[in-house]
Amino acid sequence: MIKAGIIGATGYAGATLVYLLNNHTEVEIVYLASHSYAGQSFSSLYPGMRNSVDIILDEIDINKASNICDVVFLALPAGHASSLVSQSILDNTVIIDLGADFRLDNAEVYKQWYKQEAAPANILKQAVYSLADIKPFNAGATNLIANPGCYTTCSILTLAPLLINSLIDSTSIVINAMSGVSGAGRKANISTMFCEVNGSIKAYGVSTHRHTPEIEMALSKLSHKDVIVQFTPHLVPMNRGILSNCTAKLKKGVTKEMVAKAYNDLYNDSTFVNLLDYGTFPETRFTLGTNRIDIGYVLDSRTNNIVTIGAIDNLVKGAAGQAVQNMNLKFNLDPTLGLTNCCANPY
Amino acid sequence: MIKAGIIGATGYAGATLVYLLNNHTEVEIVYLASHSYAGQSFSSLYPGMRNSVDIILDEIDINKASNICDVVFLALPAGHASSLVSQSILDNTVIIDLGADFRLDNAEVYKQWYKQEAAPANILKQAVYSLADIKPFNAGATNLIANPGCYTTCSILTLAPLLINSLIDSTSIVINAMSGVSGAGRKANISTMFCEVNGSIKAYGVSTHRHTPEIEMALSKLSHKDVIVQFTPHLVPMNRGILSNCTAKLKKGVTKEMVAKAYNDLYNDSTFVNLLDYGTFPETRFTLGTNRIDIGYVLDSRTNNIVTIGAIDNLVKGAAGQAVQNMNLKFNLDPTLGLTNCCANPY
Amino acid sequence: MIKAGIIGATGYAGATLVYLLNNHTEVEIVYLASHSYAGQSFSSLYPGMRNSVDIILDEIDINKASNICDVVFLALPAGHASSLVSQSILDNTVIIDLGADFRLDNAEVYKQWYKQEAAPANILKQAVYSLADIKPFNAGATNLIANPGCYTTCSILTLAPLLINSLIDSTSIVINAMSGVSGAGRKANISTMFCEVNGSIKAYGVSTHRHTPEIEMALSKLSHKDVIVQFTPHLVPMNRGILSNCTAKLKKGVTKEMVAKAYNDLYNDSTFVNLLDYGTFPETRFTLGTNRIDIGYVLDSRTNNIVTIGAIDNLVKGAAGQAVQNMNLKFNLDPTLGLTNCCANPY
Amino acid sequence: MIKAGIIGATGYAGATLVYLLNNHTEVEIVYLASHSYAGQSFSSLYPGMRNSVDIILDEIDINKASNICDVVFLALPAGHASSLVSQSILDNTVIIDLGADFRLDNAEVYKQWYKQEAAPANILKQAVYSLADIKPFNAGATNLIANPGCYTTCSILTLAPLLINSLIDSTSIVINAMSGVSGAGRKANISTMFCEVNGSIKAYGVSTHRHTPEIEMALSKLSHKDVIVQFTPHLVPMNRGILSNCTAKLKKGVTKEMVAKAYNDLYNDSTFVNLLDYGTFPETRFTLGTNRIDIGYVLDSRTNNIVTIGAIDNLVKGAAGQAVQNMNLKFNLDPTLGLTNCCANPY
Repeated sequence: MIKAGIIGATGYAGATLVYLLNNHTEVEIVYLASHSYAGQSFSSLYPGMRNSVDIILDEIDINKASNICDVVFLALPAGHASSLVSQSILDNTVIIDLGADFRLDNAEVYKQWYKQEAAPANILKQAVYSLADIKPFNAGATNLIANPGCYTTCSILTLAPLLINSLIDSTSIVINAMSGVSGAGRKANISTMFCEVNGSIKAYGVSTHRHTPEIEMALSKLSHKDVIVQFTPHLVPMNRGILSNCTAKLKKGVTKEMVAKAYNDLYNDSTFVNLLDYGTFPETRFTLGTNRIDIGYVLDSRTNNIVTIGAIDNLVKGAAGQAVQNMNLKFNLDPTLGLTNCCANPY
Repeated sequence: MIKAGIIGATGYAGATLVYLLNNHTEVEIVYLASHSYAGQSFSSLYPGMRNSVDIILDEIDINKASNICDVVFLALPAGHASSLVSQSILDNTVIIDLGADFRLDNAEVYKQWYKQEAAPANILKQAVYSLADIKPFNAGATNLIANPGCYTTCSILTLAPLLINSLIDSTSIVINAMSGVSGAGRKANISTMFCEVNGSIKAYGVSTHRHTPEIEMALSKLSHKDVIVQFTPHLVPMNRGILSNCTAKLKKGVTKEMVAKAYNDLYNDSTFVNLLDYGTFPETRFTLGTNRIDIGYVLDSRTNNIVTIGAIDNLVKGAAGQAVQNMNLKFNLDPTLGLTNCCANPY
Repeated sequence: MIKAGIIGATGYAGATLVYLLNNHTEVEIVYLASHSYAGQSFSSLYPGMRNSVDIILDEIDINKASNICDVVFLALPAGHASSLVSQSILDNTVIIDLGADFRLDNAEVYKQWYKQEAAPANILKQAVYSLADIKPFNAGATNLIANPGCYTTCSILTLAPLLINSLIDSTSIVINAMSGVSGAGRKANISTMFCEVNGSIKAYGVSTHRHTPEIEMALSKLSHKDVIVQFTPHLVPMNRGILSNCTAKLKKGVTKEMVAKAYNDLYNDSTFVNLLDYGTFPETRFTLGTNRIDIGYVLDSRTNNIVTIGAIDNLVKGAAGQAVQNMNLKFNLDPTLGLTNCCANPY
Repeated sequence: MIKAGIIGATGYAGATLVYLLNNHTEVEIVYLASHSYAGQSFSSLYPGMRNSVDIILDEIDINKASNICDVVFLALPAGHASSLVSQSILDNTVIIDLGADFRLDNAEVYKQWYKQEAAPANILKQAVYSLADIKPFNAGATNLIANPGCYTTCSILTLAPLLINSLIDSTSIVINAMSGVSGAGRKANISTMFCEVNGSIKAYGVSTHRHTPEIEMALSKLSHKDVIVQFTPHLVPMNRGILSNCTAKLKKGVTKEMVAKAYNDLYNDSTFVNLLDYGTFPETRFTLGTNRIDIGYVLDSRTNNIVTIGAIDNLVKGAAGQAVQNMNLKFNLDPTLGLTNCCANPY
């Protein structure tokens, strides 16, 4: 059994991870930590887990965690993970970070978008950004895995086949994504109160959202060219789910068949990528509680655009589920273990 | 007092119109009709209107309506209005159609997108498509006013200044719009049941939505060039409200100041267009129950795009409110009458 | 024009009051204060009020307010109002408190349920608890009006006719009330975040909710007997609205006609009490934005119970609307002024 | 492997059953039928089940189903099941009916509340009403199991210990229950459309709801006395979940300890009944996707009432989950099989 710990276990991503790991046949949860709720039991916060996960939450202690765990998951706000992870920690255990601190390989870009210092260079260079459904990224010899973001996972998986195969103009991409409120994390502030969100929709972080450089980095690497995207996220009055509407100009001569081949080639063997019939489009509700992405697209001959749309559960495929998938890859388990019938604790 | 009638009074747009006209100081409602609820009182369906609007709903009778009304509003599914409106009706009364039958001046385009015959040519040519906040469209001598659609009103008002002033590439426009469920009308079907919509988001009508040619027609006329748009609507789990996210490539040399001037020039005198401070963006909730559009935008120097976003209440500005505004214009009333403190019956 | 001030103007009740007073033909808003947002304009928080209410929010200053206002509304958490209101303030202006500090005439009862000291006795004795739709309570010569609570207004108006006429066993009353989330106020905490509330229902304050003694006090005074109630509130995933389901044993021999007469006698002249047809029941949506209560009931011969149900908008009839109604009464205006077409700023 | 069929597989309860049985290690789904969607694949309606359950839906054919299945689940509107189940069917297979046709043992009572004829007497007498968490009811030698209703399961499990132990006055019971919209079934009608339900709460079926006699029958049998309840259901804007608030007068001398013992005695060995700490109360969200009921209560010394509250997922514990539990009991499997980590397809 793999001994697992979670630091930041009571947030939405952290609690989803607790749920998934608790049902994973090869994992034993041995350590849970939370700054806000240290001293309380996990199940006192999530009564649905009574008698399943009654572990008392520890104050955050990465040394202790690394000593007793084979793998430690970090689910913390930006800037926290990079202050916790040192070389001695990495020598001791596997770290899978659900946050952003180790995702961008360029420290300058991190600083520019996150308005704080990047992780130390010697640590950062060990990080592997692992989009678990696309091979080149998969976790290898490293002990430091950067788990991709939620908007980014959805947008990258939706666009990758088109860019890898040079089917679209890489300067024309417009991504409008819509997310449920759990994406904002479980911290009290006015802007995510029920009455401020319910019955309304808004864009936010327009031209400044931090997932932008992550999408561009990953798509550029995959396609070996500079990809730039106009990424605009929107807040939707629902708990979970992300939809990424990606619109781009098709290159001259690109046909429906070429697009279909591109998607099939990349995702044919993937358990977790569900290509919908041509002209049908995903709904977030059908992905809730699963580690799946549903993708549908149409080529519009009037405009020469392709509109390709992906949908995921931001807390599973966009966070905890992909983290488990990355753990499976790292520990040479069946990559689908604990994820085929997953249905995370609903919020 | 203007004697007003509404045919299709119990749908969401129709009922909102009842509410607005009931509070309009220069209007008396004298006729209400509904195919589904004929014989019942309006207030039996909308108990909040008890003692205010207890009129018994008539079976649809356009002749009767035109005989007793100075203005008849039609709020019916596509194809119904064109079968009701004849020359003798137009000789007798003013028709303001909230539906789509008289919006597109090109009968072929109507047929192509609506999959049914357009209105007779002699009637259609009398129709004025009246975007009430933009002068060239305003209701003139005609007795047949085509009230713009909801997505279209929001998208056109948001984009018009940029196209009129040739600030964007008219082939690069991507509109992703998100609407509350009342936009689908008040008819029972599985896809708008609570459990099918709540907690989820989806795109629909991708590349085929009927508001596409209406947006293109209006923007083309305003800018005297062929405008083509990629329009994708999305269904959001909320009752009311539309947000139109419009992204387009800026022409070379276009500055923030030029954009600001374009918006100010067009909307400076407009009571109902609310230009937000640069870099702030609208939320649909702040427009609910009002006849206002809120618009915010940003120029992104990384991508050379402008992202401009408008928000309205689909049932007021996008339907009943604009219809009242058009009635005010037609009858030479203060255009804001009955609309400055409007707050339609909430669903 | 009555010069009005609001202290606590940015909370949900306060902002609704701003909206209503701004549309009141006999009132001019001259003062707005907010501890959290002092220095900002009201419309920067509520963009829907741009160009209508752009007043800069003051730090809370009751002396200043009382000097420039004919009436000052307080919309503050429990304990704050009693620390602000002194004799010199009351000599200077009319205070209408939307909070709980002056509602309970018994200081011991206040202390027991609110776990803090009651208002000073000399101030408290000047307070009139004014259920604006029931005569005995109406605001008289006093300058200190205690505006009833939301659950209490709904529950008392629903039950009063039965108790005044001794039609039910006053020890058998079970009130299960359900409220939208705005009732919890506009302050950031985990329990009212979107994801914690959406998709769920719970009871809270079971046997301990502070509105219990207020309901009992008012019903006891109206019926001249000791009334005790089992009051249980529930939190519903919606922004606004309260439904009070009141079940009680009918006294022997009580008929449908006797019950109808009791309701009609008390509410016949009331603009704001809407008695539904026998056997039909209210829905909160039809009261939203109005100062109305809708009431429906049924006598169950199987159980000898009456089930009587009231519905209101907690922010209007249950807070700001009733406060305006009380102001109208105090200043000898038509009690319905500013309230017949009210539709408060939607959240 | 148990061969299972579901008739009515595309409704909310039916689809939840498909989900649960698909993950049940001892069951193979061999037959699915749906009147509305015959000829389509199950996964075309529920894309989340693609590659898992692609069975083509049959037109309803009970003979075929009984020939190929060891157990056939019926999830149909009232009146349909009784017309399908004959003696030859029961001789051939096990029937577990999720509807109401076989729940009430008294045909007269059925007729009175359901306004239609009860099932034939020779069939009805074979039915066992099986509340799976309470022993006396458990499925025995019969081939016809009546699965309890949703409101009833929640209300009966919450009240049973008090009545079995004679701790409350059996004529004083007031049950106010609140349900998500999936309880109304998956059929298109105006009253369950998104805009008619969202943002509102209402009572319905006041004094006439069909679950009333079922609650009374079960509680009377359990307590060997005539139990009568005032049952009022309410519709809440959420997809799933039921909360039953049960208030009753305590008998003289009843203590907290006596109540605790009553609950512990009945539910001590129950995997699926979760007794919360004294004074804490359930939230429906923590039961979603599970076969659990959470129960909390408080004794109120002011009123001599007990308020006891239960929460379930109406589609799992209140329908499909309990049906699987009953199947497990009937087939002598571990009663928790397929239910400990269940998390039904979310709507």
